[in-house]
Amino acid sequence: MISRVMSAELAEHAGQRVTIAGWVHRRRQLKSVSFLVVRDRTGLAQVVGAGDLPGEESVVEVTGTLAANPQAPGGFELVEPEVEVLARACVAPPFDLYRPVVGAALPTILDHAPVALRHPRLRAPLEISAASVAGFRATLDGLGFTEVHTPKIVASATESGANVFGIDYFGRPAYLAQSPQFYKQALVGVFERVYEVGPVFRAEPHDTVRHLAQYTSLDAELGFVRDHRDVMAVLRDAVAGMLESVRHRAGAALDLLGVTLPEVPAEIPAVHFTEAQRLTGSAEPDLSPAQERWLSEWALREHGSEFLYVTGYPMAKRPFYTHPDPARPGYTNGFDLLFRGLELVTGGQRLHRYADYVEALAARGEGTEAYEGYLQAFRYGMPPHGGFALGLERWTARLTGAANIRQTTAFPRDLHRLSP
Amino acid sequence: MISRVMSAELAEHAGQRVTIAGWVHRRRQLKSVSFLVVRDRTGLAQVVGAGDLPGEESVVEVTGTLAANPQAPGGFELVEPEVEVLARACVAPPFDLYRPVVGAALPTILDHAPVALRHPRLRAPLEISAASVAGFRATLDGLGFTEVHTPKIVASATESGANVFGIDYFGRPAYLAQSPQFYKQALVGVFERVYEVGPVFRAEPHDTVRHLAQYTSLDAELGFVRDHRDVMAVLRDAVAGMLESVRHRAGAALDLLGVTLPEVPAEIPAVHFTEAQRLTGSAEPDLSPAQERWLSEWALREHGSEFLYVTGYPMAKRPFYTHPDPARPGYTNGFDLLFRGLELVTGGQRLHRYADYVEALAARGEGTEAYEGYLQAFRYGMPPHGGFALGLERWTARLTGAANIRQTTAFPRDLHRLSP
Repeated sequence: MISRVMSAELAEHAGQRVTIAGWVHRRRQLKSVSFLVVRDRTGLAQVVGAGDLPGEESVVEVTGTLAANPQAPGGFELVEPEVEVLARACVAPPFDLYRPVVGAALPTILDHAPVALRHPRLRAPLEISAASVAGFRATLDGLGFTEVHTPKIVASATESGANVFGIDYFGRPAYLAQSPQFYKQALVGVFERVYEVGPVFRAEPHDTVRHLAQYTSLDAELGFVRDHRDVMAVLRDAVAGMLESVRHRAGAALDLLGVTLPEVPAEIPAVHFTEAQRLTGSAEPDLSPAQERWLSEWALREHGSEFLYVTGYPMAKRPFYTHPDPARPGYTNGFDLLFRGLELVTGGQRLHRYADYVEALAARGEGTEAYEGYLQAFRYGMPPHGGFALGLERWTARLTGAANIRQTTAFPRDLHRLSP
Repeated sequence: MISRVMSAELAEHAGQRVTIAGWVHRRRQLKSVSFLVVRDRTGLAQVVGAGDLPGEESVVEVTGTLAANPQAPGGFELVEPEVEVLARACVAPPFDLYRPVVGAALPTILDHAPVALRHPRLRAPLEISAASVAGFRATLDGLGFTEVHTPKIVASATESGANVFGIDYFGRPAYLAQSPQFYKQALVGVFERVYEVGPVFRAEPHDTVRHLAQYTSLDAELGFVRDHRDVMAVLRDAVAGMLESVRHRAGAALDLLGVTLPEVPAEIPAVHFTEAQRLTGSAEPDLSPAQERWLSEWALREHGSEFLYVTGYPMAKRPFYTHPDPARPGYTNGFDLLFRGLELVTGGQRLHRYADYVEALAARGEGTEAYEGYLQAFRYGMPPHGGFALGLERWTARLTGAANIRQTTAFPRDLHRLSP
């Protein structure tokens, strides 16, 4: 490697002659002296008196003597510098990356993502996202889960029918997977407990602040549950583990964005769907976004929790593989997890007996033909099981307060955007 | 959860009445007594005298008293059992899952993957694969890398042109990404060091034992390198970390398959391409599979290493973004890592200056139009950098000695296979 000291470690080398390397974050020529701020992956470092400097975002290696300066980032600056230019920026960035506030609108940011994401505020959500996934995996690894990788190209558009992307698969029609649902269930038969972190694809023709055509789904599925409450307990631990990891691994990003992490109660409060209806005065068999917001506020007020489970959604509103509530006809063992006013996770107990699948499909007027590959696992014996799916970008957006989900992924794909 | 003791923990409960749960791995009715072997994710447990039993692969919960029996798996068996059937298998498995050797041909296994993968020998490669990925991530996390998720739907089929899957993207043509190459390079500008574990797609019309239409690529890219040797050092650490993780997390799978893990030398031996040509007597500007095998044997003989780097491949054999060897016209700073006779990883230093890209494309008779999104990052200043890509299934196949790469992934996709 290029031998260098990272900007976060300058204090350890006070008085020494050191080499740093990074991007020209800012250059400033005053009448008598020039200032250069160099950005590396750990932060910023100031250089004084460097003379003629290349444009911002050029890559430089600077050797200098470390002198204390309380005004400089980290309390030290490099003096008597020698600057070597490793790569010269050909053009100026579309907006100033050194200003604390991002001075560009979202379309400009997205069109110029490769350079725009270098702005510390735009990079921060991606750091929080990476830390979240690490916590998700660590928690589930600790609970005996096995990581799996499932096909993203599938033969039939079974799970929801509409909104799938079609592919030409060696001359045959195929589709991009909308979720690993069927595969993760089958793999419960192999490993008992599995998770997958991977892309899923939704051809939703909506241009909103919360739709992406590709997003990263954090999926888990586990066997030998009593019912959905066992799934909810694992999800609670996964969310707590994600937050713990964010706290440890992305502290600087949290500080920069001024994010306060929520507390996860040892047991997240839960209300049954019918109770949620009563509380919100809803007569519909579903909850509106406004009602979800109201319920979140209620949970914070009544239970001091930013998380709330709504359980027992009606059969008609859940996929056919959802396990019914044995005690309450018409309702399911399915749940949603609300976080700060929005549904963050959907999950539930699934059917596990082959005959129940045949019956559930018949009740919806469907045969089993399109589902044969899926149903195979259930012919051979499957334990009671359930699972959940959490959208990574939605999670990061709720955590950071991003107004648009496109700010939580490096290169979003949507109805209009296919590049960069 | 269903309250149970895992089969691997039976010894801790000697003499107690316990409940286990799992699949009917085998049932055997002798003249005077019946035996039941139950399989859970930790191993097998024997039950004696259970009376009438459901078919193999049915899911049961068994409560019994733990008695010592040196012949039983784990040294204990459950006596005086009560058996509850949680789910009854409707049909017999396509082959006996309880026999130590898999008694079915590959097409049968693949057609019945949801049940076939329950066979411990068929599950084992997936456990080794999961452990490998965990080690890859842990090593790179420790080296300051950031995990990223990049688009799998792209606007142009630039990297290799042929062999891409076409998609209908909201009425526009698009393609499935063959690699995250361009995105991971751009993100070096943001994070300096990045990795991604995700699916890549190759529409290769070859029906061989080593081609998959979707595979899991372990990609890494890092900035501020001197040249490709810094990338090779990081790859060496990643491979060592993967093996360490396999040793710790998948020991039972290794034992079952009789796999001996290779040692990774502190420095993996390297030969220049021209030297490899001289050693193998090759006159071609590439190495044949037979020559790769010969070189692997040579490295084991001469250096005691199952790994060998071949460096400096000719320009004509490497993608346009490969950095040339400044000291040796016509050759590159690109490398391959050979492992047990096969190329396992391709990597190298990349070009980092915009002008060099324009020139490299022109030298191949191409303009920059199709690459504008890619080249954007280089207009704004990029450090010297490089990276590598390792195919997870190929890795697992080499490690386990699998004859066919389809045995190393749960639900393979190939020229003919699109389900289950």
